Amino acid sequence: MPTLDLTLSAADLTRAICDIPSVSDDERVLADAIDEAVRALAHLEVHRDGDTIVARTQLGRAQRVVIAGHIDTVPVNGNVPTRDVEIDGEPFIWGRGTVDMKGGTAVQLRLAAELADPVVDITWIWYDHEEVEASKSGLTRLAATRPDLFAGDLAILGEPSNGEVEGGCNGTLRVVARTRGRRSHSARAWMGENAIHAAAPILARLAAYEPREIVVDGLAYREGLNAVRISGGVAGNVIPDLCEVEVNFRFAPSRSGEQAVAHVREVLEGFDVEVTDLAEGARPGLDAPIAQDFVRAVGATPRPKYGWTDVARFSALGVPAVNYGPGDPSLAHHDEERVSVAQIEDVERGLRAWLTAG
Amino acid sequence: MPTLDLTLSAADLTRAICDIPSVSDDERVLADAIDEAVRALAHLEVHRDGDTIVARTQLGRAQRVVIAGHIDTVPVNGNVPTRDVEIDGEPFIWGRGTVDMKGGTAVQLRLAAELADPVVDITWIWYDHEEVEASKSGLTRLAATRPDLFAGDLAILGEPSNGEVEGGCNGTLRVVARTRGRRSHSARAWMGENAIHAAAPILARLAAYEPREIVVDGLAYREGLNAVRISGGVAGNVIPDLCEVEVNFRFAPSRSGEQAVAHVREVLEGFDVEVTDLAEGARPGLDAPIAQDFVRAVGATPRPKYGWTDVARFSALGVPAVNYGPGDPSLAHHDEERVSVAQIEDVERGLRAWLTAG
Repeated sequence: MPTLDLTLSAADLTRAICDIPSVSDDERVLADAIDEAVRALAHLEVHRDGDTIVARTQLGRAQRVVIAGHIDTVPVNGNVPTRDVEIDGEPFIWGRGTVDMKGGTAVQLRLAAELADPVVDITWIWYDHEEVEASKSGLTRLAATRPDLFAGDLAILGEPSNGEVEGGCNGTLRVVARTRGRRSHSARAWMGENAIHAAAPILARLAAYEPREIVVDGLAYREGLNAVRISGGVAGNVIPDLCEVEVNFRFAPSRSGEQAVAHVREVLEGFDVEVTDLAEGARPGLDAPIAQDFVRAVGATPRPKYGWTDVARFSALGVPAVNYGPGDPSLAHHDEERVSVAQIEDVERGLRAWLTAG
Repeated sequence: MPTLDLTLSAADLTRAICDIPSVSDDERVLADAIDEAVRALAHLEVHRDGDTIVARTQLGRAQRVVIAGHIDTVPVNGNVPTRDVEIDGEPFIWGRGTVDMKGGTAVQLRLAAELADPVVDITWIWYDHEEVEASKSGLTRLAATRPDLFAGDLAILGEPSNGEVEGGCNGTLRVVARTRGRRSHSARAWMGENAIHAAAPILARLAAYEPREIVVDGLAYREGLNAVRISGGVAGNVIPDLCEVEVNFRFAPSRSGEQAVAHVREVLEGFDVEVTDLAEGARPGLDAPIAQDFVRAVGATPRPKYGWTDVARFSALGVPAVNYGPGDPSLAHHDEERVSVAQIEDVERGLRAWLTAG
């Protein structure tokens, strides 16, 4: 079993944990290594649930912060082990997971070991199965069995945000809009009814849709309503009796999931619409004094997070939550995934400054 | 090896050849049985090419008629062997191939054996691979190696036509219309370009298209322009960069294939259109005196054939061709495929009357 030295620099720790592959469903080896390393730390109380590890200080501080990172990655594609590369003279660590999000998780592991006496109590959570369906997520499991472990005044998720603070997140909703027709041989099309033709107004409405930008707690969230998939057809000589358009609505956190569904149903009025997936957004929560302290301490300008992240889970439990981690999110899942070493160090400095500020 | 008794009634012969399964690619056993049975007939000169059998009278008549039927079927689906069923008091033979087109082929086999002294010379052709891509068809092969065997003044294809004479056939053309965009994460849709949305005008134009009815040699051919398939999309969180719409144009035999392509390109102007499949139609050719004699002799009212059939191959070689066979074409390929015994007998009587009319 590999062992982790948590006194390494965050950059070296990034290399170390990226070189232990941990594609979703296969996090055990890395989870065991983290578990063993943090159990050696006297200032942390450790709880394990599957491949999720929770490590808490119990210093009786007035406030508690939850700092979380997932340990799984999307599948490896020839990009493990990591390599050091230089781009425009700047050092990067290249490889699967460097951006999403072992760079952020490495910073957390390093600080978990170092900060025996932070100014706030800290609950560190390193969890499994973030990159797959929500039902498998370590956070889903933990929220069901130990919701008390989520308690805190602020949650910080180490998802890549280019070292900036990204508040909240948009919600995401998927529906399938269906049109139905009647099959016939295409040589006698008048005996059938073409379901693909019937989908013309769905595409026309989506093409004409003007997404809004909505300001929530001072951050401007851009929405988007898009067909992400379309399918229909039986054979090259058959009038199709079914066409399905999968539509993804990314909605500002000021809308509830229910309101988002109502909006999509309104846009697609007259069509059969089935909701297949819904995740509420999260308000940025930057109006909380502790969040403002955090933003000030790390010296960042808050931005909105467009992608859905697990901040929404904390938000749903009433804990304001932000994203703060190294790495360019547009490189997440990319075969050329790579994280700037300087960003890793910046985020490490930022978190340390805030967690030790007297 | 099964043997065929060509003195059976056409209905019994239908049962016999349907009970020898001959799904495309697997026609050998039936072809061997037909080959053996017709070689026993002294009045026919037999030529074999793969699983296609050509049997000709050489009586020196003034006119020659080509009468053809395919021997393959679409896949069996629990509907072999045949069963006798009654619908509204009328006897039917139920099972794969009864309609498409072993009923018609059985009539031909029966008459090939019986008519040693017809008033015209006859070229009987029973061929393989009609139900699959044209390149595999026994007729394609034969037209390439022995075009002389297609020579004749009229061709009659035994495709199911409810015992009516169906003249010519519509042409058929398939194109794929493509729209392209640019991928991005659907959480940042404004960085991409949605190819599915871009297909909206394609569907709108197809939905608004008013197909024409065109009279050719006295028969009215209905055209049709239809999307038969649509696909697009990468994943539930990705703005799609490609959408493909497969469009099938069934066009009257007065249009050449080239004109049909030009028409579709005009309807879909501004879009990337690729022609993937083209089969010319066939004019009904009912203005030829021999065709008029035939129609009169069998006592039928000619109708247009909408589906594409092999009559177009004869038409392309300058031989007027019609469809004339038992069975309801809308039951072809159907799991409940079944042919009316009365229609088999009618077509047998019709052909015999004409071929022996002195």
